[in-house]
Amino acid sequence: MLPRAAEQDGSADRSAEMPRRVGFPGSRPSSGLHADLYELTMLYGFLRTGIAGRRAAFEVFFRENPFGNGFTIAAGLERALAFLGALRFSADDLAFLRGTGLFPDGGFLDALRRFRFQGDVDAVPEGTLVFPHEPVLQVRGTLFEAQLVETAVLNAIGYASLVATKASRVVRAARGRPVFEFGARRAQEARAALEGARAAIIGGCAATSYALAGRRYGLPLSGTHAHSWVLSFPSELEAFRAYAASYPDNLILLVDTYDVVGSGVPSAIAVFTEVRARQGRLGRHGVRIDSGDLAELSRAARAMLDAAGFPDATVVASNELDETVIAELDRQGARIDAYGVGTRLITAYDHPALGCVYKLVAVEEGGRWVPRLKRSENPAKVTTPGCKRVLRFTDRQTGRATLDLLLHADEAAPTQPFEAFHPLYTWKRRVVRDADAQDLLQPVMRGGEPVADLPPVARIAERARRGQEAFGQDVTRLLNPAEYHVDLSPRLWETRMALLRAAERTVRGGG
Amino acid sequence: MLPRAAEQDGSADRSAEMPRRVGFPGSRPSSGLHADLYELTMLYGFLRTGIAGRRAAFEVFFRENPFGNGFTIAAGLERALAFLGALRFSADDLAFLRGTGLFPDGGFLDALRRFRFQGDVDAVPEGTLVFPHEPVLQVRGTLFEAQLVETAVLNAIGYASLVATKASRVVRAARGRPVFEFGARRAQEARAALEGARAAIIGGCAATSYALAGRRYGLPLSGTHAHSWVLSFPSELEAFRAYAASYPDNLILLVDTYDVVGSGVPSAIAVFTEVRARQGRLGRHGVRIDSGDLAELSRAARAMLDAAGFPDATVVASNELDETVIAELDRQGARIDAYGVGTRLITAYDHPALGCVYKLVAVEEGGRWVPRLKRSENPAKVTTPGCKRVLRFTDRQTGRATLDLLLHADEAAPTQPFEAFHPLYTWKRRVVRDADAQDLLQPVMRGGEPVADLPPVARIAERARRGQEAFGQDVTRLLNPAEYHVDLSPRLWETRMALLRAAERTVRGGG
Repeated sequence: MLPRAAEQDGSADRSAEMPRRVGFPGSRPSSGLHADLYELTMLYGFLRTGIAGRRAAFEVFFRENPFGNGFTIAAGLERALAFLGALRFSADDLAFLRGTGLFPDGGFLDALRRFRFQGDVDAVPEGTLVFPHEPVLQVRGTLFEAQLVETAVLNAIGYASLVATKASRVVRAARGRPVFEFGARRAQEARAALEGARAAIIGGCAATSYALAGRRYGLPLSGTHAHSWVLSFPSELEAFRAYAASYPDNLILLVDTYDVVGSGVPSAIAVFTEVRARQGRLGRHGVRIDSGDLAELSRAARAMLDAAGFPDATVVASNELDETVIAELDRQGARIDAYGVGTRLITAYDHPALGCVYKLVAVEEGGRWVPRLKRSENPAKVTTPGCKRVLRFTDRQTGRATLDLLLHADEAAPTQPFEAFHPLYTWKRRVVRDADAQDLLQPVMRGGEPVADLPPVARIAERARRGQEAFGQDVTRLLNPAEYHVDLSPRLWETRMALLRAAERTVRGGG
Repeated sequence: MLPRAAEQDGSADRSAEMPRRVGFPGSRPSSGLHADLYELTMLYGFLRTGIAGRRAAFEVFFRENPFGNGFTIAAGLERALAFLGALRFSADDLAFLRGTGLFPDGGFLDALRRFRFQGDVDAVPEGTLVFPHEPVLQVRGTLFEAQLVETAVLNAIGYASLVATKASRVVRAARGRPVFEFGARRAQEARAALEGARAAIIGGCAATSYALAGRRYGLPLSGTHAHSWVLSFPSELEAFRAYAASYPDNLILLVDTYDVVGSGVPSAIAVFTEVRARQGRLGRHGVRIDSGDLAELSRAARAMLDAAGFPDATVVASNELDETVIAELDRQGARIDAYGVGTRLITAYDHPALGCVYKLVAVEEGGRWVPRLKRSENPAKVTTPGCKRVLRFTDRQTGRATLDLLLHADEAAPTQPFEAFHPLYTWKRRVVRDADAQDLLQPVMRGGEPVADLPPVARIAERARRGQEAFGQDVTRLLNPAEYHVDLSPRLWETRMALLRAAERTVRGGG
């Protein structure tokens, strides 16, 4: 095992020291225009129709795990809450909206000027494993405020959860060897570099190359030099010597600028030898290979380093890596100690959107929540109505998660043993007994004020790591994982069927 | 043909009015930590080695057109220049760097505190069609400043160019019917929603749903209502009536909340009828279908609208559309007048990174530029050395672009007629005669100061549109386009071969 990546590259792991953020001190206002226009036209309509103040409940969920993975790691909550807490319409925002001509009733712009998000939010803590159709975040508030934040919440939760999940796949493929996140240059714009780095650490990466992520989120950093360093000197050997003059204890040298075996590794060995002679010892040292046949070149580099008396030198590989390439390199007998993963992680290359949706599930009428259902033309897009709670049952004997159960929010946990059934294939049943039940959704905001401490990233990463352990290999294997059971309580299932039948009657009745 | 999307949705097209931005007024400082750590460790090494002030030239290019497209639309320059102009290290940035322990020589942090980007930049104007291996941006400055900005420049140029190119594919598939960009919620974090919307307009989209993009870049906006609007009322008919009360002249009604044919379209027709009776006329009106069999449902909706006396009603379709789905819907005889395209455009779903690189191509030694070449283990990763110019030759008779030629920056355009040859398959030759030559790279920054006006987005989009016309159907077709000729001048080709041979000798000589 290698030491922690952070130590390897000499920068301290600061995530453990990061203060817990309660409230959103120092956040700049976030613009209310971080929204789709239709949210604003709907708000205008709600206000003019007189129902803007009616309370409504929306839930965020997704319909499919990405990458063929067996689960998704929830992330992005801190960012979503920071947005809600700082949401304002600036004078510029309001002037712009006035200029569109779409909002002639001035009362609307006044309402926006005074706007503060004052809703309630429940959410699954970051780092929790979640599954399709489970609510990962709930917003309850006025139709006005709850509808406004749709795009912003989806944008924050969707991308972070996607990258955390992708990172967990790459990390599982690496089987204990550290994975460094190197993707900032290929991220989809600047903010993705930052939030993607954070999500990568949550998913299990050891460090990121992105400097700003070190400052903003206290993430461990990693990085040494590029090909341009080598090209800035008359020869590769001189370039490596110059690097060693500044970083004698952090000597991960990039050896493929000219030729790995013919030039790069021999030059690195020469410099390791010089530094060891000068210092009497060597700190971190190794080579990075960024092109060519990584299996063959890593074996050759390993053999040369060993033969030259540098068995502790690490071999780092990069170049369009992902979980599939890493697994294949392993199968080919590559001798790689650590991986740098860029483009394919930060963009979630093979599934670059989670497809989160934000759906109205209930409206308050006469002091009680009335469930709402969207029927849709696609059966897969039919929603599950009502405010919900999600219970995760963990077998007390095995410590394994066995079932998630969706219930009405006001519904008590079922008495064990009980029989749960698949919401679609209702003949698929399973009995739950002797299991601990845990509520996944936790209160995080009440009346627009934060009510939960936000843990540092290192602790979120730890939650994701333990979460994967609790699910066992059938759910966490990379290829063709088992489908984890997410069932509806009988009462919730009945509500859904009743609303579906009612929608059918409405349709047959002719709208 | 539909009217412009902007008009359709009632918001004015502001892009034409947008002032040309010269300089970067009002930009907030951009953090120097928007970089990979290795850039900072290299800067530290350059400073300590005494070569930080040596002048170097870097070029941005990519190796492959995305999506199997025949070209790439350059975009993101305004954003890259704004970053360079505003690049600063704040006190927080410096304190963070000090805390890493990686930069013990305090002179380095002082240098960062005083840092301003003062380099020269040449770039291809946004909206220009570019091809693999062509420099799209050149930075010349000290090693220190030119190396620092690598990640930031790649991040800005790569994503914007990718989305502009994807948008052009979707727009070509739509064959004149407007395409609306709807992707903000699925974008990879907030900034991608903004820059992606801008790039989508550059690539030919008629409008975006993202409100902030309207304010920041003056882009035309589009949007009406979501399913949640319908679910907020007792019935679909009441929901449509309520919407019509606020937007009688912008009545694009979402008709698939329950059942398109059974409920949605009949309710829409009822409301169109009421509004027409009340107003004596109808403004924009139509239906949007967001699920189900879009070909079949659009035909059914069209027939019902026509039969009810609403032949001018538009049928808008959305739901995981891209150029392939749009072309297939066309083939199936769908009756769709406009498309909303979200996830697959904003994330460039099938090729979510352009793979731009930033390579050192020359170093100044004794007052002259000395070309540098990275050999690499992959032949495709071997660079073309030296500062370059790019000439595009356009046939005077046909108006068609026939060849791009890369030359040394100080090399004169060849006298016509001349014979150009493929840099790899050198037996592939073509004679250029009677052609206009245009320099693609233009000065945009000198000594850190902007020297070019930045055009408004509408003008950039116009350049992209005309650019595609100049290339003809062989290069612009969606599937299996012809490879456009990008050749090297004989002198540049010789420089490259000589450096490759020299690198081979060095390698054989043993590093």
